Amino acid sequence: MEVTKINTAQYEFSCGVELETVVNILNDIERAYQLDYHFLILPISHPRFNRDFTALSLGNSFSNKAPFTRSDVLLPSNYWKSVVVGKVSESVVDCDSSDYHIRVNSIKTLKQEISWAAHLSLPAILLPSPNYSSIHYAQAVNQSLSSLHNMRVWIRIPLLSPKSQLLNKEEYIKGEELDKVDNTWEWWNNFRSLCGNSLNLFPALELTSDLPDKEQLQQWCGEQIKCVIIPTSIFLTNSAGYPTLSRAHQAFLKKLFNLNIQYVVTGNEMEQLEDYKTYVKFLHGNQKPMTEDEYFEMPYLDFLQAPLQPLMDNLESQTYEVFEKDPIKYREYQNAVREALLDLDDKDYTEDNPIVIMVVGAGRGPLVKCSINASIEAKKKVKVFAVEKNPNAIVTLRNRVILEGWEDLVTIIDSDMREWDTEYRADIMVSELLGSFGDNELSPECLDGAQKYLKKDKGISIPCWYTSYIAPISSSKLYNEVSTFGELKHYETPYVVKPHNYHQLAESKPLFTFKHPNYDKVIDNSRTEILEFQTTVKSTVCHGFIGYFDCCLYKNVHISINPKNFSTGMFSWFPIYFPLKEPVYIPQNSTIKCSFWRTNNKTKVWYEWCLLSPQITPIQNVNGRSYYIGL
Amino acid sequence: MEVTKINTAQYEFSCGVELETVVNILNDIERAYQLDYHFLILPISHPRFNRDFTALSLGNSFSNKAPFTRSDVLLPSNYWKSVVVGKVSESVVDCDSSDYHIRVNSIKTLKQEISWAAHLSLPAILLPSPNYSSIHYAQAVNQSLSSLHNMRVWIRIPLLSPKSQLLNKEEYIKGEELDKVDNTWEWWNNFRSLCGNSLNLFPALELTSDLPDKEQLQQWCGEQIKCVIIPTSIFLTNSAGYPTLSRAHQAFLKKLFNLNIQYVVTGNEMEQLEDYKTYVKFLHGNQKPMTEDEYFEMPYLDFLQAPLQPLMDNLESQTYEVFEKDPIKYREYQNAVREALLDLDDKDYTEDNPIVIMVVGAGRGPLVKCSINASIEAKKKVKVFAVEKNPNAIVTLRNRVILEGWEDLVTIIDSDMREWDTEYRADIMVSELLGSFGDNELSPECLDGAQKYLKKDKGISIPCWYTSYIAPISSSKLYNEVSTFGELKHYETPYVVKPHNYHQLAESKPLFTFKHPNYDKVIDNSRTEILEFQTTVKSTVCHGFIGYFDCCLYKNVHISINPKNFSTGMFSWFPIYFPLKEPVYIPQNSTIKCSFWRTNNKTKVWYEWCLLSPQITPIQNVNGRSYYIGL
Repeated sequence: MEVTKINTAQYEFSCGVELETVVNILNDIERAYQLDYHFLILPISHPRFNRDFTALSLGNSFSNKAPFTRSDVLLPSNYWKSVVVGKVSESVVDCDSSDYHIRVNSIKTLKQEISWAAHLSLPAILLPSPNYSSIHYAQAVNQSLSSLHNMRVWIRIPLLSPKSQLLNKEEYIKGEELDKVDNTWEWWNNFRSLCGNSLNLFPALELTSDLPDKEQLQQWCGEQIKCVIIPTSIFLTNSAGYPTLSRAHQAFLKKLFNLNIQYVVTGNEMEQLEDYKTYVKFLHGNQKPMTEDEYFEMPYLDFLQAPLQPLMDNLESQTYEVFEKDPIKYREYQNAVREALLDLDDKDYTEDNPIVIMVVGAGRGPLVKCSINASIEAKKKVKVFAVEKNPNAIVTLRNRVILEGWEDLVTIIDSDMREWDTEYRADIMVSELLGSFGDNELSPECLDGAQKYLKKDKGISIPCWYTSYIAPISSSKLYNEVSTFGELKHYETPYVVKPHNYHQLAESKPLFTFKHPNYDKVIDNSRTEILEFQTTVKSTVCHGFIGYFDCCLYKNVHISINPKNFSTGMFSWFPIYFPLKEPVYIPQNSTIKCSFWRTNNKTKVWYEWCLLSPQITPIQNVNGRSYYIGL
Repeated sequence: MEVTKINTAQYEFSCGVELETVVNILNDIERAYQLDYHFLILPISHPRFNRDFTALSLGNSFSNKAPFTRSDVLLPSNYWKSVVVGKVSESVVDCDSSDYHIRVNSIKTLKQEISWAAHLSLPAILLPSPNYSSIHYAQAVNQSLSSLHNMRVWIRIPLLSPKSQLLNKEEYIKGEELDKVDNTWEWWNNFRSLCGNSLNLFPALELTSDLPDKEQLQQWCGEQIKCVIIPTSIFLTNSAGYPTLSRAHQAFLKKLFNLNIQYVVTGNEMEQLEDYKTYVKFLHGNQKPMTEDEYFEMPYLDFLQAPLQPLMDNLESQTYEVFEKDPIKYREYQNAVREALLDLDDKDYTEDNPIVIMVVGAGRGPLVKCSINASIEAKKKVKVFAVEKNPNAIVTLRNRVILEGWEDLVTIIDSDMREWDTEYRADIMVSELLGSFGDNELSPECLDGAQKYLKKDKGISIPCWYTSYIAPISSSKLYNEVSTFGELKHYETPYVVKPHNYHQLAESKPLFTFKHPNYDKVIDNSRTEILEFQTTVKSTVCHGFIGYFDCCLYKNVHISINPKNFSTGMFSWFPIYFPLKEPVYIPQNSTIKCSFWRTNNKTKVWYEWCLLSPQITPIQNVNGRSYYIGL
């Protein structure tokens, strides 16, 4: 019985109940516990304790000496810390009232209740919904946020504004009538923008009996929703007399089940609460079971990783082991090598002068294995050179040659591919140097260096080209992960990540392409590109760009992590996330324009990027000051 | 003969000449020196040295070994450092060309020339004009900027775009036809925005024969223009055969003379250059001479000062001395006290029971003097109490009483006005506790504490009320001054400053008002206000807000630093500048909406502020984390 933590890999089911009044707090908690609820949302103060701060000194009915709420000693402290979410009095708080008395009282009441909740070490506090222009409410909460340590602030946001709910269904389904001021995502966005995107502030989304249209629901896809509140009033009753939800509500909840969210049932009568809880739990348990891939990926969802630097650092054994397990990548490499072998003219080779394959960056040998398998399939004799700079991988490789009986087939070269000195020339050069963004692990620079071993004009490089793709995304979750680091450097670093709680704002577009071998007179691997994306989504916030690659290994043999032609089952690469320093508001149907540079000097390669429209942002990572890939 | 430094108080006349080609650099410099020019703008490389970086290794006509420009030993290094501004080859640089070859060559040429100029320690380098979308050009310059230490980068911006100049005069005067893409201020704004508002980047404004309309000229008022380039082609010839400028050009230049800008004459023939220079110098010398006030203020223009904290710190003797010299403030105080005395009913007082005036915060006694003068003018007998907490000021005050023979009139109270324990009650309480923003030196809190000595219901406070005013401004100059500090804290501090290089975007509006005495049941000196300003200016950038106060001393006697009703000649207060953390682009004819809070706790008072429209910005100075006024 505990409020679950964020970032746990397991999507445990966690459901609380919101109570309007508390009769006996210990009894209420024990009752909820019997009904299998995980936590309770309770009002912090009794409505009877109506505080008038503006009349403090006047000996009014409200006395300074009377306690404004129940004592903390009513509960053991570990109960407060784990099962109680505090709730600020809805009726009391109108911080933006034009009436001075109400405004001042509201702000002081609000601060007093937040302060009390923090004093009790509650895991979270639930605040009443703001509206489009809750400026003073945001300022008061922002002040409190800056002094909170562990307690999270949940802010209630209805999916549809009360005004929208008054419209008839057909009107709001069209979605045109919902003006910006009535769009509840805008309420949330204004509020958290004023609060400087505070890391402790989260939306608690309250379902409404009518649901907004798909576009409006999408506005929430990039938001880090902490809690979904389900009012008992939206339940239907099935033929057996039990509560049930409409199909639309079910569908929406099923989407949220994937986001590790907590649920709260809110209603009046304790008697029926067990049935609501049972139903929500049933829906949650009734999900499609996870695939093996999904299970494998789960701990990595929205988890930021610094990109590998295999050129500067030597990989660890475990890293090799994980990536060697990819079922798709090596199958495609084998297909590519076989097709290339079949394209070579037999009359150019003899038993004593067989086809030469060089595997550059052989690691522990998976591509050597692919090459040999391909030669068997193609029925062509080959000689394989395995070039590898990591002395630790060489150990494994030498052992493998003996184990597999490759002694006559494979020659191991213990050297950096850029430095090996040899008279041999390859017919086929095979490499796997791609990063999530294609060129970001310096495949271009490595292969440019290695291509001197390739037979001039007719040598084949596998891969033969690759292209990076980018798309603008909205993801408070990813942005907050970056903000947690708290330094400029981290806003200027691209991260390898499996994005989950995000919303891609337009289809990805090709960015930079590299071809191999590259026989340009002067090889130039710097690149620049300006891209335009036309969003068709409702207003949103851009938090940066998601990057992919598409790679042609040979002719029709591709590997790709671009969603458009993703190599299903391939798990070696997650996408790459380029953050923006500040989130940028994107009005409905905007053109998002951005610029990316791949630039380099003698010792390093780096990217710079910026937004050009709807707003110009400063160019990030100037001169690779925060992030670069060492040559 | 030196390029003048920024921030010198004297507006020295500094005029350079731009040469298209250099025949003999030392001769050219000496010739310019004879003509009384202060510096030269010279091309960094000879146009003959056309570099082709993309063919470097191909043994082309351009060899790697040939120097790309003249040797640095042609000039003594102090010449390079003081009289030469380098100029990047206009013809060579097209960094945003769609042609790969041209683009790459342009960027490398640009970087090579900037690097060479920095190597020579030139004071500045002049770059060719960008256009509306010089994205790659900006990226290349931004990279260079990040590695420069002392050298400034001037970027040439024509006042009118070449396209606008092709329109006929009536068309462009209407200004409607000039679209955003053709507005050269937008070129500059896009460029510097991409460069993250670099502190080393400045516009060098080139006059065009046609001038843009007034609104477009205003866009430049907040920019830190380093240099104005005057082409010889825009000069007219007067009846005596000498060069002269049109009235419109003269008027524009006269505005700039106030901004400590350097001038550059650009043209082809050395022969006529003396006359151009003589004419510009004549215009400069022909300005209206400075008034005494202007001369006094000059060292303070755009100079940021932390606001005084007279409550926490004791003022120094020199500070008292400066402020006591204000010719207007004390005249108005004397008027106010006299009017208040005349309003008092003589029958309430006797020779033994005269009118009681308390001067709270008496300092070295200027308001004591005003009060006594006023009593003489009003022919009313008074008894004056001078309350002062600064023991050093008390020393001066005691001496003054003896010197002026006030022994029977004045009683000195050596105490904080909030703590003095007395049975006396004042008819009139006089104080001068106002800061630039009215309440920002805690006048409200002090007077609330002191009003217990005031006769209940009929006692008069001088001042009786004051109101702060704010207006949005554009000022790269002030923003850059804040950026120089380089820390969040400084973006969240209001500064006392005499703004000079700035542009007020709308008329100021009233913000917070305080009245004295304050007999509210619960005194609440916190304030909140949301204000809207309708700009009528062309597109611009908002860098924050300028604040003023207007104060009613008594009935019709006012002192004000709000431009609308400024108390001419009063110099005790400069305005106050509230910076925004990031400059915000303001489209033409926008609504600027902002929110300000005055908030407090037991030990301090502070402001928080943010923009609400056209963009929401995070609330600044949360909980007074960066700036507060101690109680």
